[in-house]
Amino acid sequence: MEAVQSSVDMLWVMLGSILVFFMHAGFSMVETGFTRSKNTLNILMKNLLTVAIGAILYFFVGFALMFGPSAFGLFGTEGFALLGRDDIGFFVFQAVFAATCATIISGAVAERMKLSAYIWLTVAMTLVIYPVVGHWVWGGGWLSQLGFVDFAGSTVVHLTGGVAAFIAAWKIGPRIGKYSGKTVNTIPGHNLPLGALGVFILWVGWFGFNGASTLAADPALVPPIIAKTLLAASAGVLSTAAYTRFRYGRLDASLTLNGALSGLVGITAGCANVSLIGSMIIGLIAGVIMTESIRILDSKIRVDDPVGAISVHGIVGLWGTFAVGLFDTTNGLLYGGSSEMVGIQTVGILAVIAWTTVMASFSLAVISIFVPLRVTTEDEETGLDFTEHGSQAYSMQDVLRGTGPAADQSFAARLNQLGDNPSVQKL
Amino acid sequence: MEAVQSSVDMLWVMLGSILVFFMHAGFSMVETGFTRSKNTLNILMKNLLTVAIGAILYFFVGFALMFGPSAFGLFGTEGFALLGRDDIGFFVFQAVFAATCATIISGAVAERMKLSAYIWLTVAMTLVIYPVVGHWVWGGGWLSQLGFVDFAGSTVVHLTGGVAAFIAAWKIGPRIGKYSGKTVNTIPGHNLPLGALGVFILWVGWFGFNGASTLAADPALVPPIIAKTLLAASAGVLSTAAYTRFRYGRLDASLTLNGALSGLVGITAGCANVSLIGSMIIGLIAGVIMTESIRILDSKIRVDDPVGAISVHGIVGLWGTFAVGLFDTTNGLLYGGSSEMVGIQTVGILAVIAWTTVMASFSLAVISIFVPLRVTTEDEETGLDFTEHGSQAYSMQDVLRGTGPAADQSFAARLNQLGDNPSVQKL
Amino acid sequence: MEAVQSSVDMLWVMLGSILVFFMHAGFSMVETGFTRSKNTLNILMKNLLTVAIGAILYFFVGFALMFGPSAFGLFGTEGFALLGRDDIGFFVFQAVFAATCATIISGAVAERMKLSAYIWLTVAMTLVIYPVVGHWVWGGGWLSQLGFVDFAGSTVVHLTGGVAAFIAAWKIGPRIGKYSGKTVNTIPGHNLPLGALGVFILWVGWFGFNGASTLAADPALVPPIIAKTLLAASAGVLSTAAYTRFRYGRLDASLTLNGALSGLVGITAGCANVSLIGSMIIGLIAGVIMTESIRILDSKIRVDDPVGAISVHGIVGLWGTFAVGLFDTTNGLLYGGSSEMVGIQTVGILAVIAWTTVMASFSLAVISIFVPLRVTTEDEETGLDFTEHGSQAYSMQDVLRGTGPAADQSFAARLNQLGDNPSVQKL
Repeated sequence: MEAVQSSVDMLWVMLGSILVFFMHAGFSMVETGFTRSKNTLNILMKNLLTVAIGAILYFFVGFALMFGPSAFGLFGTEGFALLGRDDIGFFVFQAVFAATCATIISGAVAERMKLSAYIWLTVAMTLVIYPVVGHWVWGGGWLSQLGFVDFAGSTVVHLTGGVAAFIAAWKIGPRIGKYSGKTVNTIPGHNLPLGALGVFILWVGWFGFNGASTLAADPALVPPIIAKTLLAASAGVLSTAAYTRFRYGRLDASLTLNGALSGLVGITAGCANVSLIGSMIIGLIAGVIMTESIRILDSKIRVDDPVGAISVHGIVGLWGTFAVGLFDTTNGLLYGGSSEMVGIQTVGILAVIAWTTVMASFSLAVISIFVPLRVTTEDEETGLDFTEHGSQAYSMQDVLRGTGPAADQSFAARLNQLGDNPSVQKL
Repeated sequence: MEAVQSSVDMLWVMLGSILVFFMHAGFSMVETGFTRSKNTLNILMKNLLTVAIGAILYFFVGFALMFGPSAFGLFGTEGFALLGRDDIGFFVFQAVFAATCATIISGAVAERMKLSAYIWLTVAMTLVIYPVVGHWVWGGGWLSQLGFVDFAGSTVVHLTGGVAAFIAAWKIGPRIGKYSGKTVNTIPGHNLPLGALGVFILWVGWFGFNGASTLAADPALVPPIIAKTLLAASAGVLSTAAYTRFRYGRLDASLTLNGALSGLVGITAGCANVSLIGSMIIGLIAGVIMTESIRILDSKIRVDDPVGAISVHGIVGLWGTFAVGLFDTTNGLLYGGSSEMVGIQTVGILAVIAWTTVMASFSLAVISIFVPLRVTTEDEETGLDFTEHGSQAYSMQDVLRGTGPAADQSFAARLNQLGDNPSVQKL
Repeated sequence: MEAVQSSVDMLWVMLGSILVFFMHAGFSMVETGFTRSKNTLNILMKNLLTVAIGAILYFFVGFALMFGPSAFGLFGTEGFALLGRDDIGFFVFQAVFAATCATIISGAVAERMKLSAYIWLTVAMTLVIYPVVGHWVWGGGWLSQLGFVDFAGSTVVHLTGGVAAFIAAWKIGPRIGKYSGKTVNTIPGHNLPLGALGVFILWVGWFGFNGASTLAADPALVPPIIAKTLLAASAGVLSTAAYTRFRYGRLDASLTLNGALSGLVGITAGCANVSLIGSMIIGLIAGVIMTESIRILDSKIRVDDPVGAISVHGIVGLWGTFAVGLFDTTNGLLYGGSSEMVGIQTVGILAVIAWTTVMASFSLAVISIFVPLRVTTEDEETGLDFTEHGSQAYSMQDVLRGTGPAADQSFAARLNQLGDNPSVQKL
C-alpha cells in the first residue's frame, strides 16, 4: 500500500519537475520574442546556460545549503553532491526550481550584459543567493520557524530573482537609445508570437510549479491548487486587458501576456492557502500592479527592463506573498485573522529583499573586477549575436525573395492557374 | 486502497487537464501561422482572452449549467461558483474543455472580426451555448438518456464550435480581397512553421483530451484510447497527403497539417468504442472529407475561413460522431448492430446543429446592436495589430540588415576566414 | 493492490509515450530552424509523415518483428496488427520510439532529398531495419542474450538512425554550393529561435524517453534516471560551450544547442546503470566528441549534414553505448569490472552498424530504381517548398512594410505621441 502510494507521489513530483523544466523553454521564447533579433542567440544561450549551470551547481552545493541540517536557521550544512541523501526525486524538483530563479535575471539585462559576467552572476545565484533564501523558507530556516508562508515561491523564487534582476539592470544601465534626454524611446521586440508561445508554455509549466509543490499526489490538495493557478492567471489576463484598454485606449498585447504571468506569480505563494475566489482577486490586482510598475520603472525610475521581469516577478512576487496575509482562509486578515500574519509575511519580504540586494550588489562588484559587466558600445550596436557568437539568428533572404507585393502577386497568380487548388495559404 | 486509487485517478485527470490547456498554445500557433502578420497580435489576444474568459465564466456559471441537477434534461440548475461541489479536479478538466470549444471560432473569423464583438460571442459560447450542449450529452441530459455516444467531444466540443464558427464567418463576410468577381484569391498565411508547431502541440494535447475523458486511470481503457488517437491522426495525415497529391498534383502542406487535426477530431467521439482498425478507417476518411469540405466552402459556398476551422472541427466533428454509429464494436451498423444507433447519433448531430445555429445567430444579432461585428475597411487594410493594439508583432529591421545575398556573402566570407570554424549555420 | 499498481505503471508509460511523441515537435523545429526557409514546408512534411508512417507500419508489422516470439534470436514472428496481444500501452510507447529513429534521417538529408524517396526510406526503417535491431536488444534477441546493455536506446534508436542518416547523406551528396573546390561554405539556418525551442522540447521529451523505459513507476529507479538525464544534458551544454569558446574563440550557439542533445543521446544507454557523477562525465565527453565529429565530417569527410544529426545521434550514440562498459556501476571497467562488458558493448555497436549500413544501402539502391533519390538542380535552387508543395512557408510582406529604419522611426514616433503608453515593445 505505502509502496504504491510512494509510486504515485513520485510520479506526480517527476511530472512536476518535467513541467517546471519546460518553463525554461517558455522563458527563452518570452525573452527572445521581446528583444531585438540581433541579440537573439545571446539571450537563448543565456537561458540554456542558466539551466545547465543551475542543475550542476545545485547538485554539488545548492541542495545541501538549502535542505541540509540547519546551522542557526541560516543555511544547510550537509548533502553536498547528494552525499548521504536518497531523496533524488525531491532533488530533481528543487534543481529545476533553482534554475528558474536565476533565469529571471537574463530578461532584465538582455541586449547589453556581457555573457561572461552574466554567467558568473548565475553562479552566485544558484550557488548561494537562492539556496540560502530557500533554506530560510523551505529548509527549516528561521522564516519557516517564524510561520512565514510561501507555498510555491512567490518570494523564494520570484521576488529573489526579481530583486537580483533590478540590481543588475540598474547597475549596468539602459540599452543605448532607450533614453534620450526627456524622451523614453520604445525598443520593439522582434517576434511577439514566440513571446506569446513562451507565455503559454510558462502557464503550462506553472501547473507543475504550484501543483507539485505539494510533493505528494494528494487528491484533496492538488486539484484546488491547479484550479487556483488557472483562475488567478485568467484573472490577471482580464484585469490587464481591461486596465490597459481603459488606461491607454487600447488593449496592450504584451502587457496582457505579462498579465497572465502576473496572475501566476501572484498566486504562487498562496495557492494552497487561499480560496478560489481569493485566487481570482489576487490575480486581478496582480495585473494592475504589474502594469503600473512597468510604467513607473520604465518612465520614472528609468531602469531599462526589456521584458518586464522586475515588475512581473519582483513586484508581483511581493504582492503575492503579502496577499497570503490577507487572503489565507485560516489566518488571513480578511478572514478574521490577526495582523500577525501580515507582519510575518512583511518581515519575510523585507529580509529577502535585503539579503538579495546585498548579495547581488556584492557579487556584481566582485565580478566587475575581473570582467566588464557590459559589452562595448560598438558591440551593443552591432548586436551580441555576432560579437559574442560570431553568427546571426535569422537568415531570411529566401523569405525576402519570396515576398513583397510583386512576388506575392505572381505567386497568387501561379496558384490560381492551378484552378481550385486550395493551396497551403488558404488554410 | 481506494485512497491510493483516487490519487492515481486524480493525477491522470490533472495531467489530462494540463495537456488540454496546452492545446490553447496549439490553437494560437495554428491561427497565427495561417493568417497574415499584420493581424498576429490580434489573433493571439483573441486566443488568450478566450481561455481567461472561458475559465472564469465556466467557474461561475457554465459548470453548473452543464453538470448541475437536470431540469427536464435540458440544463443544470445548481453548483454556480462551485457552491456545494467538491469535485474540483473534474471542474478543472471541464473548464479547459469549455475554452477549447469557444476558441475554434477565433480562427474562422480571423483578420476581420472586431475584438470586442468576438469577446461577447465568446461570453455567449462559454456561458450558455456550450454548457447546454454539454449537459445534453455529458450532464445526464436528454441526448445521454437517448443513448447518444460522444465519448470525448466530436460533437460537444468540435461540432458546436464549428457550427458557431460557420455562422460567425458567414455573417461577417470574407476578408477584403478574398473574392474578386469569379476569382477566389489566396491570402497566404505568414508563418507556417508556427502553424506546424501548433498542430504538433494540439496532437500532444489531444492525448489528454481523449485519454483523460475516462476520468480514471483505467489500465484497460486508457492505453487503447491513446493508441486510437495516435493511429487515427496518423491515418488522417496519410490520407490527406495522398489525396492532395492525387487531387492537386502536389502534397499540400497545410491541408496535410489539417489532416492530422481531422484524424483527431474524427476519433474523438468514438475513441472508447471503436476498434484500432476502425480508428484508422475513421481517420483516413476524415482527411478526405476535410479536404473536399475546405474546397467547397472556399470556392463554392464562398465562406472565408482562414484556418479551415469550420471543416476541421465542424464537418469532421459531424463525421466522427456519425462514424460511431457505424464502427461501435457493440452496436455499430458495420458490427451487426441495428440502424438504431445511427439514428440516435443523427438526432444528436441535428439537435446540436439546430441549437448552436439559433443561439449563435441570436447572440451575434444582439451583439451587433451594441458593437459592429467587423472592423472598418480602413482598419482591416491597416491591420488589426495596429488599429486594435497600437503595435506590431514583428520588428525585423535587424534581420533585414543581416540578410540579402550581399550581406550573406560577406557573412559567409567572415566565417570562412575563421578557418574550420563550423559556425552556427552548419548545424 | 496489484490493480492500483498497474494503474500507476500504465499512467507513467502513457505519460512517457506522450513526452516521446512531443519529441517529434522538437525534431521538426530543430530541422526547420537549422535549414533554409525555401525548404521549410518540405522538412515539416518529412517529419510529420515519418510519425504517421512510423505509427501505422509499426502497428501492422514492426511491433511483431521487434517483440514477437523470437526466431533464432534474430526477429519476432507474431503479433502483426497486435493480433493476440493485449499490452497496448507497451505498443504505444514502442511505436512513438520507432518513429523517432526514422526521423533522425530527415535532418541529415534535408534540402535535397526527394520526398517520395525519403518516404520509402522511412518505410524501410520502421518496417524492418529498426524493429530487427530492437528485437536483438530489447526483444529477447541475441544481443540481449549476450548481455548487451542499452537501457533506453543510444544504439537501438540513435546509432541506428545516425548510421542510416550517414549512408543516405553520403549517397545523395552535399547541397549545391556547400563545397566549391577547397572551400567549405556555410549555409545559414534560417530561424535559430525555432531550433532552440526544438532542443528544449527534445530535452523535455527525453525525460519520458529515458524515464519511462523502466516501463513501471518504480520510485527507486525513475528519479535517478530523470536526474542523470538532467545532469548529463547540462554537462553536454557546458562542455560544448567551453570547448567551442576555447577551440574557435567564441561560444558557438548551435553547437551548444547540439551539446544538450549530445548529453541526452550519451546518457540514454546507461541512464539506469551509471552513477550521477558518471552521467555528468559521459555528458561532458559527449559534447566534445560531437563538436569534433561535426568538424571532421563537414570539412574532412565532406558529408553534408545540415543539422549535425549524424554526429549527435550516430557518433554520440556510439559513445554512450560504449560508455556503459566503462561506467556501469556493477560491471563497468572503471568500477573494477572485467573488460568483458566493454567487449560485449563493442560487439553490439559493430553488429548494429553493419546491419544498418547494409540494409540502408540496399534500401536506397532499390528505391533509386523507381524514384530519383535527389531533386533536380533547378528544383533544389528554387526550393523544395515550391517545387514539391507548390507553396512557401513564409509570407512576410506585411512585416517588411512595417519595418526598416524608416518605418520603425515613424512607428516609435506614433507610440511616443501616446505619452506614457508603455506599448507592446517595451515589454
